[in-house]
Amino acid sequence: MARLLFLLKLLIVTASVNADVGELPPDSYLHKSPWTWTCKDSTCVKMNKDDLGPTEDGNPLSVCKLNCGKHGVLFPLPTGKVEIGKGFVQFYPQNLKFAPVEAPAVTLVKRFGEASKIFTTYLNKMHPDNNKDGTAPFPSGTEVDPIAKNVVLIHIAIAHPNTRLELNTDEGYLLSILQQDDKNTVSVTITANTYFGARHGLETLSQLIAYNDEMNCLQIVDQAIIRDKPVFKYRGIILDTSRNFISVPTLKRLIDGMSFNKLNMFHWHITDSHSFPFYSKSVPLMTRYGAYSPRQIYTIEDMKDMVEYARIRGVKIVPEFDAPAHAGNGWQWGPKEGKGDMAVCINQEPWQKFCVEPPCGQLNPVNENMYDILGKIYLDMLEIFDNDLFHMGGDEVNLNCWNKTDEIREFLTSRGKDLSQESYVDLWNTFQERALKILRENRRDERKNLTAILWTSDLVSTKHLLDYVDKNDYIVQTWTTGNDAVIPFMLDNGYRVIFSNYDAWYFDCGYGAWVGEGPNNWCSPYKGWQQVYKNSPEFIYANVTSLNKAKKAVAEGLILGGEAAMWSEQVDGAALESKIFPRASALAERLWSNPSSGWYAAEPRMVHNRQRFVERGLSPDRLQPEWCHQNENLCYL
Amino acid sequence: MARLLFLLKLLIVTASVNADVGELPPDSYLHKSPWTWTCKDSTCVKMNKDDLGPTEDGNPLSVCKLNCGKHGVLFPLPTGKVEIGKGFVQFYPQNLKFAPVEAPAVTLVKRFGEASKIFTTYLNKMHPDNNKDGTAPFPSGTEVDPIAKNVVLIHIAIAHPNTRLELNTDEGYLLSILQQDDKNTVSVTITANTYFGARHGLETLSQLIAYNDEMNCLQIVDQAIIRDKPVFKYRGIILDTSRNFISVPTLKRLIDGMSFNKLNMFHWHITDSHSFPFYSKSVPLMTRYGAYSPRQIYTIEDMKDMVEYARIRGVKIVPEFDAPAHAGNGWQWGPKEGKGDMAVCINQEPWQKFCVEPPCGQLNPVNENMYDILGKIYLDMLEIFDNDLFHMGGDEVNLNCWNKTDEIREFLTSRGKDLSQESYVDLWNTFQERALKILRENRRDERKNLTAILWTSDLVSTKHLLDYVDKNDYIVQTWTTGNDAVIPFMLDNGYRVIFSNYDAWYFDCGYGAWVGEGPNNWCSPYKGWQQVYKNSPEFIYANVTSLNKAKKAVAEGLILGGEAAMWSEQVDGAALESKIFPRASALAERLWSNPSSGWYAAEPRMVHNRQRFVERGLSPDRLQPEWCHQNENLCYL
Repeated sequence: MARLLFLLKLLIVTASVNADVGELPPDSYLHKSPWTWTCKDSTCVKMNKDDLGPTEDGNPLSVCKLNCGKHGVLFPLPTGKVEIGKGFVQFYPQNLKFAPVEAPAVTLVKRFGEASKIFTTYLNKMHPDNNKDGTAPFPSGTEVDPIAKNVVLIHIAIAHPNTRLELNTDEGYLLSILQQDDKNTVSVTITANTYFGARHGLETLSQLIAYNDEMNCLQIVDQAIIRDKPVFKYRGIILDTSRNFISVPTLKRLIDGMSFNKLNMFHWHITDSHSFPFYSKSVPLMTRYGAYSPRQIYTIEDMKDMVEYARIRGVKIVPEFDAPAHAGNGWQWGPKEGKGDMAVCINQEPWQKFCVEPPCGQLNPVNENMYDILGKIYLDMLEIFDNDLFHMGGDEVNLNCWNKTDEIREFLTSRGKDLSQESYVDLWNTFQERALKILRENRRDERKNLTAILWTSDLVSTKHLLDYVDKNDYIVQTWTTGNDAVIPFMLDNGYRVIFSNYDAWYFDCGYGAWVGEGPNNWCSPYKGWQQVYKNSPEFIYANVTSLNKAKKAVAEGLILGGEAAMWSEQVDGAALESKIFPRASALAERLWSNPSSGWYAAEPRMVHNRQRFVERGLSPDRLQPEWCHQNENLCYL
Repeated sequence: MARLLFLLKLLIVTASVNADVGELPPDSYLHKSPWTWTCKDSTCVKMNKDDLGPTEDGNPLSVCKLNCGKHGVLFPLPTGKVEIGKGFVQFYPQNLKFAPVEAPAVTLVKRFGEASKIFTTYLNKMHPDNNKDGTAPFPSGTEVDPIAKNVVLIHIAIAHPNTRLELNTDEGYLLSILQQDDKNTVSVTITANTYFGARHGLETLSQLIAYNDEMNCLQIVDQAIIRDKPVFKYRGIILDTSRNFISVPTLKRLIDGMSFNKLNMFHWHITDSHSFPFYSKSVPLMTRYGAYSPRQIYTIEDMKDMVEYARIRGVKIVPEFDAPAHAGNGWQWGPKEGKGDMAVCINQEPWQKFCVEPPCGQLNPVNENMYDILGKIYLDMLEIFDNDLFHMGGDEVNLNCWNKTDEIREFLTSRGKDLSQESYVDLWNTFQERALKILRENRRDERKNLTAILWTSDLVSTKHLLDYVDKNDYIVQTWTTGNDAVIPFMLDNGYRVIFSNYDAWYFDCGYGAWVGEGPNNWCSPYKGWQQVYKNSPEFIYANVTSLNKAKKAVAEGLILGGEAAMWSEQVDGAALESKIFPRASALAERLWSNPSSGWYAAEPRMVHNRQRFVERGLSPDRLQPEWCHQNENLCYL
């Protein structure tokens, strides 16, 4: 039986060399590189080993970078005290141990068990010959091997029993690393108020450890103290799974990547006019008619699994049900007994007259059936996702679509209204108020607050905001340009704002036309990582008010944070990761750290951080030739 | 033991559902889609099954598309006769058989054995629940199952014993499909002059077969005759593996994708100033000093394996050794005995003065050691790759680099030359002549012709071409804009030209700056597939001469074809496939078929062809929402 197990293992555990590199060449002459890196003026300089001075230390690049410069390769930059020691301790991952977690809830202890497994797997993935099962061929260590004597002991203490990430959750942590006097033990302590802070601390810890390819072991810095917490509470990615379906394994890889840089909100734009992949238990007809195919459906199990998967990784899933526009396919089965259609303009042509892109579709705000169904969908969504934040969409309503629908025109005229734009905006507002009421009626736990999020729109605008949108009911997500007057207007009036200005944070821009032809899509050009990095919500507001007032808006949580958007007209699982990463890392540092320094100072860490994603099996795009990574600061303009 | 094997199989053969879709939902109510497609006016129209007229036929989309419209979903378009029957025959892949191949060489029979295995694997991959081992859960077929009675029999006849793809190789084929009178047998015949034509025929055959998800079987059209051959002989991709290393498995996937659309030349820009991953048996120091790391080296075995892998798939590997510029790292070990450096300006700063991007580096044309080493590298390359075509590079020589090198200045002045630009161009030409001589001396088989390829440059320009570049020695690859005067100049003067004009065929454009910042890299914007499609070398020449003359230039092989370029400053294995595909498919149709129709007519086939890549496990970028694929021609402008 032992032989059988061995055979099985041989067959299953095939080496999965990291994406961009190969195995070692057969010519062993080539195994040892002549190059080494030495830290000079906070920069790792590539040198021929033969040219090292007598007092100079040469190390593999990954090791040199760990503590060269004040922040090493920490990404995002911590916001509090950072001290990193100049020494190293070598160890094998089997000698890294977790002490029993101190936490006031069994759920958290269990969840941290998962987090520590993930952590250990990623340490193994630092080895270029790691195996698919999360192990790696590190030496088992003999008695005469001094590295085998070294032990890393991790102690975690979590103060509060919060199990869910909410807007007021404390994500801060304190990490300390200290080599003990016996020289063989490195003690690591992470203390945090919440699970979420503690897992962020573990993420930071992983960035203070590197693989040494010359010694075939791991190295950890000999000491460190890092106190850290985010500047912005809301740091997210919004992904659209309606234009193109994205499979659950691909979504999980996205969550993985977010967790590497402490992004904490996955805003799931799950449905749109194109398709309806959300499986509604109460109204399965929505999916039957609206899914692209029976295989392109998110089941309840899928989604519940996603919620827990994300939570373990410090990420909250914020669902969006966009309405009344951006709704179409899926709604066409409605009752035919003279009550009219629940949604109108579905797939209507010429699309240019009824919506912003094909296919059109918009809910019918005067149809009572629609409200019934909407309530059921809300109920189903709130049963699956946390119910303190819910995105109601609300963008790009096409008034002409409603105005071309007899039933809606008759509704207005029978009530003595004219068919002016204002009448339709008012009708839209009536829809929005009723939708919010239905949403709240359907939340799982009525004691809990439920805050809705809306996109900026004609309704959520300088013109209508104060009349129609209660700042206690809603958070507003802005998606036009950073200099749109609606931003200071909202902040001046005390509205909470999430930034997704398309001129910096829309990752779907720049890939050419998809209706018609030409090198541009609507928001071209492509947003380079430098532009993503520069886009500080605080500085944007400070530009039109004062720095003090902007700082206050951040501190008081009016500027909640931001999101990068991945609309999926021109992406699906095939290229999702490389379009989101590493640009989302630039977003992550902007929102976690909001440094006053610019992209240029971040570049070496940014490039190194990207390699961390590759090592962990993701497919982030490459920003520069590898030469620039090996020759820090030499790819300047 | 049988149980053990079964257990092993269970463990290893885990279902690998296609990239973008999931498994069927547990709610079986959702398993059957209400939607079906019916062919109207050469378009597959999505309809509710309940709304089908009494004479209308509904089919899954993939089946409908097989023979809706004259060309179904053939990609690239065949250039000769195309007739596709309106009926279908259902079958299971286990009932598809190859008759013994008729070929005048055992090598070809063996190679075709490989090609037919690949073909069968791809048929299995049409099944959404296919397994990683190339099988799929099709029914085994019972006696009462009428589908199990159907057999597809493939007969291949190859006339000539050519084993290597060369510029004069006939890639044409004739494919016929005929359902026999017994109704159970479909006979397929592919006749071709060469192996390469026959494998293209097999590729076309795979596009006349589709998976039917409602019947869980394959379907083939009941009859077809297709006569086909390419318009352009040279249809390629040039990939740079020096700026960033690309692993062999990733290169093989690129070759796979090329083969799906009959692209036939993989131009491997294997080295550059950044790194030297080519393992030279004679000069291993090049790799030792020049590789990014010991794991980023192409061994002889890797490269020989690649040559055969590509050949089976109808692709020739054309190696490039770029010189005298774009050479640097790897050359710095040279003898120190006063002979000077083999390469100069290596990693020199400020780079802007010595090269077009960091890091700089250029061969030293007055250093004799350099010529020795160059000869050895050529010899090593020619031993690995076919030796009838060799790309010598020759682009972007920086005369200032040479002019700032004492040894070179002294060389010129000691020979009575001034230090003018013309002196340096003349020196460059001296280098080029000597390099060509060395290359020819080092070819494996001296009876065979060896044609060199050069990029356009200051040397290969309207000013110098006639003086310096013999049209019998060289093919010229042009990379500036399509309206560059050098193009008609070369063609008017009888030079053979490969088109890679960057304004349409550079796939690295549009990703933002990588030195400095800003939304543009040097050749922004991004080149959309429509632009790739429109770029006909024939029409470009016809614009400045006459259509007749341009047609003649194509027919006589002066316009040899073209290549899309993937320079790798901002890409590595992580996003390579999605940046190359499906845009390379647009290139493939332009070069194989050169249709007079534009991208709009190709769009439905283009989008469907992209799905074929996904099905086969590649990661091509998505061009449109899936809704556009399901609703043909409705995503118009």
